[in-house]
Amino acid sequence: MLTDLFSPSVQHSLDIAGIFVFAISGALLAVRKNFDVFGMAVLAEVTALGGGLIRDVIIGAVPPAAFTDLGYFLTPLLATVIVFFLHPEVERITKAVGVFDAAGLGLFCVTGTVKAYGHGLGLVFAATLGLATAVGGGVLRDILAHEVPSLLRWDRDLYAVPAMVGAALAALLLRFGALDGLAYAVPVVTAFVLRLLAMRFH
Amino acid sequence: MLTDLFSPSVQHSLDIAGIFVFAISGALLAVRKNFDVFGMAVLAEVTALGGGLIRDVIIGAVPPAAFTDLGYFLTPLLATVIVFFLHPEVERITKAVGVFDAAGLGLFCVTGTVKAYGHGLGLVFAATLGLATAVGGGVLRDILAHEVPSLLRWDRDLYAVPAMVGAALAALLLRFGALDGLAYAVPVVTAFVLRLLAMRFH
Amino acid sequence: MLTDLFSPSVQHSLDIAGIFVFAISGALLAVRKNFDVFGMAVLAEVTALGGGLIRDVIIGAVPPAAFTDLGYFLTPLLATVIVFFLHPEVERITKAVGVFDAAGLGLFCVTGTVKAYGHGLGLVFAATLGLATAVGGGVLRDILAHEVPSLLRWDRDLYAVPAMVGAALAALLLRFGALDGLAYAVPVVTAFVLRLLAMRFH
Repeated sequence: MLTDLFSPSVQHSLDIAGIFVFAISGALLAVRKNFDVFGMAVLAEVTALGGGLIRDVIIGAVPPAAFTDLGYFLTPLLATVIVFFLHPEVERITKAVGVFDAAGLGLFCVTGTVKAYGHGLGLVFAATLGLATAVGGGVLRDILAHEVPSLLRWDRDLYAVPAMVGAALAALLLRFGALDGLAYAVPVVTAFVLRLLAMRFH
Repeated sequence: MLTDLFSPSVQHSLDIAGIFVFAISGALLAVRKNFDVFGMAVLAEVTALGGGLIRDVIIGAVPPAAFTDLGYFLTPLLATVIVFFLHPEVERITKAVGVFDAAGLGLFCVTGTVKAYGHGLGLVFAATLGLATAVGGGVLRDILAHEVPSLLRWDRDLYAVPAMVGAALAALLLRFGALDGLAYAVPVVTAFVLRLLAMRFH
Repeated sequence: MLTDLFSPSVQHSLDIAGIFVFAISGALLAVRKNFDVFGMAVLAEVTALGGGLIRDVIIGAVPPAAFTDLGYFLTPLLATVIVFFLHPEVERITKAVGVFDAAGLGLFCVTGTVKAYGHGLGLVFAATLGLATAVGGGVLRDILAHEVPSLLRWDRDLYAVPAMVGAALAALLLRFGALDGLAYAVPVVTAFVLRLLAMRFH
């Protein structure tokens, strides 16, 4: 009962891209925490699929997409392999995590809002689940890694606001039936750029 | 398929009251942890709605009430604003958290039991989910705030026992068809008073 | 819609056995953390039933078995009572936790795979949920106890690999329709023995 904004293949490609970049950030945190390769894979899967999993369980879309689409499941494992072999320069890690994370944030806050709205939730709740889709995986990642969720920390750069703006913008566009084709990129890019600006100027 | 113990408006008002007091306790913990206002709102929402969310996902009542009722969603934001502007005397915080929490505990252990029973669960499981409704939000709050769940700590006052008594009492009254009208107040007040006594005499 | 591999009573007995041994490990961790008897019961229930609860919510089997079967619910309480009265020699605890945990690991990775497969999931996802069933309770236990999940720690013995082997073996046997009767024991014992070997030789 998804709204038919795109051909399924475009939607799917966007999902895979978001999953990949979030998985990279999860695997990199595992490296910093000295977890082994299994821990890397778990954090990659949870960071990439956790937000969508929470959303799907809440809207009753079970089994969740994460457990019906092999591409969703295998992408974080690919990210794990890449991080495992290609992270020699530890000093580059922090910045890379940030940019990847920002891209995933922008994609997920919009796809999450769209899916929740397509399942009949009101606009406020759809946007809230869009936010939850975007930040939920990172919160689960931090809880599993036994860290204070970076989402809540006072000393961190603005993280939630870009996702809130992106989700709210997507909800508004849905409300006016205007979230089709290229318009889809508007809230995604808005959230992504806002996040990059927050990282640079904070 | 809820049991029709009350007019919907009375049930709803009780829910809102419980949500409000739990949200206050969540926002106050965020203040103590030096989270920013977004962190306060997240902890307020999670503390207030988390227990009910767990219950609704387990009994299959999706989307959960927290994602279909704007009043449930907005109340914790109101509590966040109040705490944000009115918490200048930090030394009063601990006591306020305790009393608010006790009231929410009493309300939620009963409403949770009633809702689970209304969805066809057995009395033991309904009472267990009543307990989970009452304490689940606080456990999620503590996990997000990266603290040992106060529910489990040896050095804390008795917290779970009042909720267990309230939930068990509610289940017994349901069993004998006697949980109507004023009788509803019996398990709520019992749990509330037991909790206040535990705080004072421990 | 469970696959009819066994008479219900055999399946049920295996489940109860796995629940019991996991509950023992949960209650013993609570002892080490100086939680009170309520905390012991909570950790016992969560460790024993948490993995299956996650699985059931994900496959949409609600209310989960943990909330419909009194035997599942009461077994962890029995384990709590046993640990409460019979754990005087603290030095024996670590080893006991390990052996009990290994047995539960072997049982749950197989029963979880079978149940998920019976609900129509693909073999890869069924095996993944088998793994989640086996290790999910322990992860929830560690999060509630405010510890780094032992599943992810570099310095711990191999824990996940035996469960992965057991779940994959069960999925393969399901694939070829060969997981009946005594064959059921093959993946269970394989995972159990692998785990014991990992504990001894690491």
